[in-house]
Amino acid sequence: MPTLRQDPTTKEWVIFATERAKRPHDFIKGAAHLKDEAGVSTCPFCPGNESETPPPILTLPGGNPSEWSVRVFANRFAALGPGKAKKQKRVGSLYREMDGIGRHEVIVETQEHDQTLALMEENRVLDVLKAYKQRYESLTQDPTIKVILIFKNHGESAGTSLKHSHSQLVATPVVPRDIARKNEVARSYYDKTGMCLYSELVREEMEVKERVILQTDRFVVFHPYASRFPFETWIAPKEQEPAFGNVSDAVLADLAQVLKSTLWGLYTALDNPDYNYIIHSGPVEKGQMGSSLWYIQIIPRLTRIAGFELGSGTAINTTLPEETAEFMRRAR
Amino acid sequence: MPTLRQDPTTKEWVIFATERAKRPHDFIKGAAHLKDEAGVSTCPFCPGNESETPPPILTLPGGNPSEWSVRVFANRFAALGPGKAKKQKRVGSLYREMDGIGRHEVIVETQEHDQTLALMEENRVLDVLKAYKQRYESLTQDPTIKVILIFKNHGESAGTSLKHSHSQLVATPVVPRDIARKNEVARSYYDKTGMCLYSELVREEMEVKERVILQTDRFVVFHPYASRFPFETWIAPKEQEPAFGNVSDAVLADLAQVLKSTLWGLYTALDNPDYNYIIHSGPVEKGQMGSSLWYIQIIPRLTRIAGFELGSGTAINTTLPEETAEFMRRAR
Repeated sequence: MPTLRQDPTTKEWVIFATERAKRPHDFIKGAAHLKDEAGVSTCPFCPGNESETPPPILTLPGGNPSEWSVRVFANRFAALGPGKAKKQKRVGSLYREMDGIGRHEVIVETQEHDQTLALMEENRVLDVLKAYKQRYESLTQDPTIKVILIFKNHGESAGTSLKHSHSQLVATPVVPRDIARKNEVARSYYDKTGMCLYSELVREEMEVKERVILQTDRFVVFHPYASRFPFETWIAPKEQEPAFGNVSDAVLADLAQVLKSTLWGLYTALDNPDYNYIIHSGPVEKGQMGSSLWYIQIIPRLTRIAGFELGSGTAINTTLPEETAEFMRRAR
Repeated sequence: MPTLRQDPTTKEWVIFATERAKRPHDFIKGAAHLKDEAGVSTCPFCPGNESETPPPILTLPGGNPSEWSVRVFANRFAALGPGKAKKQKRVGSLYREMDGIGRHEVIVETQEHDQTLALMEENRVLDVLKAYKQRYESLTQDPTIKVILIFKNHGESAGTSLKHSHSQLVATPVVPRDIARKNEVARSYYDKTGMCLYSELVREEMEVKERVILQTDRFVVFHPYASRFPFETWIAPKEQEPAFGNVSDAVLADLAQVLKSTLWGLYTALDNPDYNYIIHSGPVEKGQMGSSLWYIQIIPRLTRIAGFELGSGTAINTTLPEETAEFMRRAR
């Protein structure tokens, strides 16, 4: 069972997941930072190798009865796992730990070993989003879970360990630091103004226009004013909806088109950059209707996170979002 | 002049330093993420090429009159620069920006192009620390500066852009998020207990022993209980001293030995890993005597920062500090 330890200097929790199987000597340089690139025959995410993974939690059917389009299962080296919530334990005079209760799931996005979302058919992308939504909805019922984070690591510098296209879901028993902070800021804005900060931000970006790349009836895609990373991209719904688990089928279908088109834009303009994306969503608890909005944040990994960022939490961005947005509009 | 923009969703400031000269098309893959590896003849940090850098702010003499041991100058692509503090400016209805007032300096640590701190003579390391201290002390006099962060990026995955061994100093006009948070936690601990949280933590680690790698009369080196990264290492003074700028010459001499020995330990045990280190120090303002402690945090870059970390701020560590500390003790 993984463990969470609290850092007394920040009150942040750190997840210790030692079953991910690295021993200290595995970190010696050259000792394979990443798993060897699996070929089709040995890739655990390829069709035919389904028995290599934990049993499926969700399978969406493919084009014919013998195929699947999306498979979801528990991460074999889970950072968090299901269990009964227990009390935090004091360790010595300063420290605290708790059991690593939660979920860590893998969403395999396609049967094809070399496929990628940017190049997939819209219908296939929609299947992936449907799987996200079903898992999100289902896990909101679990009282031990505080936050559900769905994210994707594409490419080695974005942290991928297996090439076959997949995303992950981590559901946590505590509200992670950055999310707690954002919830607090949004709540305080709502208390003061009666408005949703994120919806106001989306409205502002649509009005100013210079950072917007793409608009559809339901979505706007833009590079935010205070982007922490070059080409950081947000896909946000125009109509306020706090929780990703509540999006309608019609919205999801639109999202499939917008997500694919946005990833395709980055793929062609920047030559298939490594990237992460994260689906941010309002708090799992109810009653936050007015103060939050789900959205997708895409972070192309074009620069390294270095000492200043690690020591301060402050980002240095070497490009203005107005410039990168213009570049992306022209590249379309 | 660089600019700071405030993210309305977190209240964090992001530094925009577009004079670092990357245009959007420079991010296309293959378009040289890092500067070409400079040879001795073209390296701006090598002796003979001093005119390639901005004028020196500080030069420490080398073994003979024609040599220097350490050179400090303004970063040519500074993230922040000197100037007069002006008011923040509102941008639209939600955003704020301010001038990027501050400092961004480069500390070249040696004349030798291929040298590295782990292999340098102790006396040379001491010169580097002396330069750090002098710059730190000098900049505390500047009323526009809130925080001084000295850090080092060693190796490509740690964000180095030039190989010749150097560190950097960034002095900011606002207190960065993570530092504000830590100051707040330490202050609240002090208010409650009358004790310095960091000194208590150091005492606890010395008592528990299992995460300690090395002790001298004045310093303890350990892997902290809630390490965010595998092999994260702290070098902390045993005697409470809030600000790095106030360390005595005797302490600095000890530190040179401990820092060199710790970096050498990582160099041999993990085969010269990429790493960052950061000198953390108490607030620049006075009156924080009881609640803080300077220390050095070393972060070997052995794993990638991926989507979960970027989306939540929560770290997943795949090893326990007790295990990595034991590994390091045995490797000595």
